[in-house]
Amino acid sequence: MTLRPAPLRLLPLFGLPEILPGCDLAGLIAGAARAEGIPLANRIVVVCQKIVSKAEGRLVPLAEVEPSPLAREIGAEHGRDPRQVEVVLRESRRIVRRGRGVLITETHHGFVCANAGVDLSNAPGPDVAVLLPVDPDASARRLADALATPAGPTPVVISDTFGRPWREGLVDVALGSAGLAPIRDDRGTLDRAGRELQVTQPATADQLAAAAGLLMWKSAGVPVVVVEGFPIEGDGSVREALLRDADTDLFR
Amino acid sequence: MTLRPAPLRLLPLFGLPEILPGCDLAGLIAGAARAEGIPLANRIVVVCQKIVSKAEGRLVPLAEVEPSPLAREIGAEHGRDPRQVEVVLRESRRIVRRGRGVLITETHHGFVCANAGVDLSNAPGPDVAVLLPVDPDASARRLADALATPAGPTPVVISDTFGRPWREGLVDVALGSAGLAPIRDDRGTLDRAGRELQVTQPATADQLAAAAGLLMWKSAGVPVVVVEGFPIEGDGSVREALLRDADTDLFR
Repeated sequence: MTLRPAPLRLLPLFGLPEILPGCDLAGLIAGAARAEGIPLANRIVVVCQKIVSKAEGRLVPLAEVEPSPLAREIGAEHGRDPRQVEVVLRESRRIVRRGRGVLITETHHGFVCANAGVDLSNAPGPDVAVLLPVDPDASARRLADALATPAGPTPVVISDTFGRPWREGLVDVALGSAGLAPIRDDRGTLDRAGRELQVTQPATADQLAAAAGLLMWKSAGVPVVVVEGFPIEGDGSVREALLRDADTDLFR
Repeated sequence: MTLRPAPLRLLPLFGLPEILPGCDLAGLIAGAARAEGIPLANRIVVVCQKIVSKAEGRLVPLAEVEPSPLAREIGAEHGRDPRQVEVVLRESRRIVRRGRGVLITETHHGFVCANAGVDLSNAPGPDVAVLLPVDPDASARRLADALATPAGPTPVVISDTFGRPWREGLVDVALGSAGLAPIRDDRGTLDRAGRELQVTQPATADQLAAAAGLLMWKSAGVPVVVVEGFPIEGDGSVREALLRDADTDLFR
């Protein structure tokens, strides 16, 4: 455990081509980093969900979608394309809330977000829905494995922008992680006065995602951010470390 | 609006003394930055709530607190010091949820968080509760005004670590801001394919708080982080820009 934190650098990665299904995303990231002179060993790479989904072919042309009666009803009620609503419903375990043209659902992964993370912006075609990766932790693991070199590991966080209760605006959160501890566990350590710290578990993977998000706004075309200087410790998945059981969720 | 984001640097500020009520916090921050050779002009300074509260004297010795019957009841039920519960209740507009020794409340400011943000760790004494600032946006404004020099402004974000629904762990969020736009409004701009972006409003102040939080874990003794390279645009308060009306909150 590092006692004195070092400065962090967040480096936007430019120069990635349009990402196509089946492409070697790790190879493209490594190549773009090489071209920009950014080393990846012992750095954390935050990758936005959109390009992971595209590389994995998580694309649905709306022309191929037959909306269910429920999707038609919700679409009519909220002025939404019923085919897009259908895709959202298929990606969801349950509807949490609906209103003002927005569907908040819980995805099959357990994420609670608008439209099950399904997005039409920055898609490869005008009516193509981009879905979340099937298993973002596994996606992160594959990327981290492919990016690792003898010079050191390259942990990966896959991020997406989510709304949240009580506060306006979106923040980036971690959908998947590999090669780092998603939560830093400071419980049991002492504060500077020697008092035991109680509930002090920073969600490191989410903080990394949010930090990278400062460089990732959609019109900027920065789908990857390299984080330098953050201590690489532990390992774990977002699903196991960060998704909260409904039973223990006092906020729910 | 910057089109191509630049690298960001996050610099932990060491060397602040123990913060005492009535001290010149801006002067201490400026002095510590000078001693470390960190310029503040045109940089954003993220300040953890704890030292702002201490400087503002937002401290309550528990020995002076007479718990109400409700505080006694909650304290007994959850194994908590009823005097601390009393302080939490006084800082709250309503109790959102209680259980497992944690009280989730809505503060008089409108923040929903554990224990109304009242904390005993890193306090100036063994039984002293540190409360949130009365008006964190005003606190940020005072610090920003005092830190500004002819060389440029120094926007300020005041941060605290909050839990959240659905996800484990804590992330830092903005309690107050001055000198920057708390939300970046990308609505109406186009994505890279020329499609209009819909709901794309990154909560910049929260992302800055979360990024700084990567260096601010409690045992590290880093209460201030300087952010270099982020474009300084707009101005606004957390209260007006980030706190969501209950009426429009689909997540609630």
